[in-house]
Amino acid sequence: MEKKIKVFAPATVANVGPGFDIFGLALEGIGDELEVSLRDDSAIKIHPIEEYENLPTDPDLNVAGVAIKALLKELDSQQGFEIVIRKRVMPGSGLGSSASSSAAAAYAANELLGSPFSKKELVRFAMEGERATSGKAHADNVTPSLLGGFTLVRSYGPLDVVSIPYPKELYVAVVHPQIEVKTADSKRILKREVALEMAISQWGNVAGLVAGLASGDFDLIGRSLEDHIVEPIRSVLIPGYAEAKHQAIVSGALGCNISGSGPSIFALTEGKATAEKVARAFDEYYTDLGIDHKVYVSGINAEGAKTINKLAEKV
Amino acid sequence: MEKKIKVFAPATVANVGPGFDIFGLALEGIGDELEVSLRDDSAIKIHPIEEYENLPTDPDLNVAGVAIKALLKELDSQQGFEIVIRKRVMPGSGLGSSASSSAAAAYAANELLGSPFSKKELVRFAMEGERATSGKAHADNVTPSLLGGFTLVRSYGPLDVVSIPYPKELYVAVVHPQIEVKTADSKRILKREVALEMAISQWGNVAGLVAGLASGDFDLIGRSLEDHIVEPIRSVLIPGYAEAKHQAIVSGALGCNISGSGPSIFALTEGKATAEKVARAFDEYYTDLGIDHKVYVSGINAEGAKTINKLAEKV
Repeated sequence: MEKKIKVFAPATVANVGPGFDIFGLALEGIGDELEVSLRDDSAIKIHPIEEYENLPTDPDLNVAGVAIKALLKELDSQQGFEIVIRKRVMPGSGLGSSASSSAAAAYAANELLGSPFSKKELVRFAMEGERATSGKAHADNVTPSLLGGFTLVRSYGPLDVVSIPYPKELYVAVVHPQIEVKTADSKRILKREVALEMAISQWGNVAGLVAGLASGDFDLIGRSLEDHIVEPIRSVLIPGYAEAKHQAIVSGALGCNISGSGPSIFALTEGKATAEKVARAFDEYYTDLGIDHKVYVSGINAEGAKTINKLAEKV
Repeated sequence: MEKKIKVFAPATVANVGPGFDIFGLALEGIGDELEVSLRDDSAIKIHPIEEYENLPTDPDLNVAGVAIKALLKELDSQQGFEIVIRKRVMPGSGLGSSASSSAAAAYAANELLGSPFSKKELVRFAMEGERATSGKAHADNVTPSLLGGFTLVRSYGPLDVVSIPYPKELYVAVVHPQIEVKTADSKRILKREVALEMAISQWGNVAGLVAGLASGDFDLIGRSLEDHIVEPIRSVLIPGYAEAKHQAIVSGALGCNISGSGPSIFALTEGKATAEKVARAFDEYYTDLGIDHKVYVSGINAEGAKTINKLAEKV
């Protein structure tokens, strides 16, 4: 077994249009890095997080600590860990920041313990990290962050996560307008009941999106990337949302919607060139608005959580 | 052009578990047959229907007449037709009886007029037949009856129907307990609002079903064949439903649910032998209950509406 490992788990886009609480996809190039090492005692020690000193280092409050403790509990293990978190996904961005740390932590601990669990099995530990930060053990970000690709959380009882096939030429353009939207606030404004007619229209789009992804039908993907239930409510919290979406569509995006609970906005495209064009349009628009922002262009990250390197000799 | 044609359009299973109002599949071997011929005048004449003398022959009330008139209206045509309907799908069975006649009529008229429309385009005319019988222009039965296969009605505005790939070894066992459940009654008892949590669980299953069909993952198809919204309400109208479903599952079915608005019950299986076993279990159970019933074993009908033969010389 290794004693120390450096791992990466990607940022993610959850919901992906109609799939509120069920769909997610993993991004390339952006994600949290963790250095995790085995300790000789049973302590879980989390170093203060660079640039985010307000994030907790108490392992019962920090998502990485919570995820690792959930894994250890199932193994009935007293193993201690030392954790250095390098956050590259800004908390509150809507790009699965907490999920990225949770997934990376569960993945790293599992690797250091000789991989007793599959990546799919790690989802339920990483979910506990989500519970620590949002009050609910969501799996829609941690699943793609662990598994990569485009994923479905079909069910929570029992937990059933599924990888959805998707075409290689699918790309994502993302803009993160740097305003603060707390996930908990964003959940609170949702209605607890929906009209049956609207729910039917939503699951029609959910079915269309999966069919379009599986068959590589980009037009169908675009037509299905609609959400009449959550987008109308959450989009009002994102300045410039309607115009940003319009800019994405006229720049050739298949569709555009809110990433997770926002404020990030994502667009899907056929091919990288179009994603770059959409990203430029996002950039120009938010520059004109005078709102600080970041843009990303990414393929779908097929790999998910991964080892960057092993930092110490085998023991 | 032909002057007279004999056509077949299959019976169908709508909803298919979680896909209320969006999914449908076409059955083999069971469906309505229509003989349709061109008249020299502009009259639409429907012969009295054998065994179903109470079905209307007025073309403004009969679903076949309504579907053909909708097609003629779009063509701005005054062409008359003579229609003989041989119903093999019992009305009120939950197997798309009216849809089968509507689809066959639209298909036959289109063939006799030189095929101005594709099968997909015929959906919107056949839907008008559904409007005549149920008050709403549903497309979930007419789409698979026309196109064959496993279909999705993604949207009504605009109408967007999609063929979903499915594995060849997918089979269907059906039992039709011959009690009367009117579709209109069955619709009326549904709630108009659903809890968001329940809707999320439903679209998780919708996504899982499409993913399972597209990738040939029979286990996933089975796990996804759940419906927590409509089944609990409608199943109470079907005597013996819970036990019939239990019998299907213990006989090896992937899943079992209500066909359309019932009272027919369908089960999906991997392979024909299991479908036959499930059909025997259905048969024995309803025989024991003393309820008249029919059982069917079928693959998925890939072809949909088709010409059986051309009955007159070309003109």
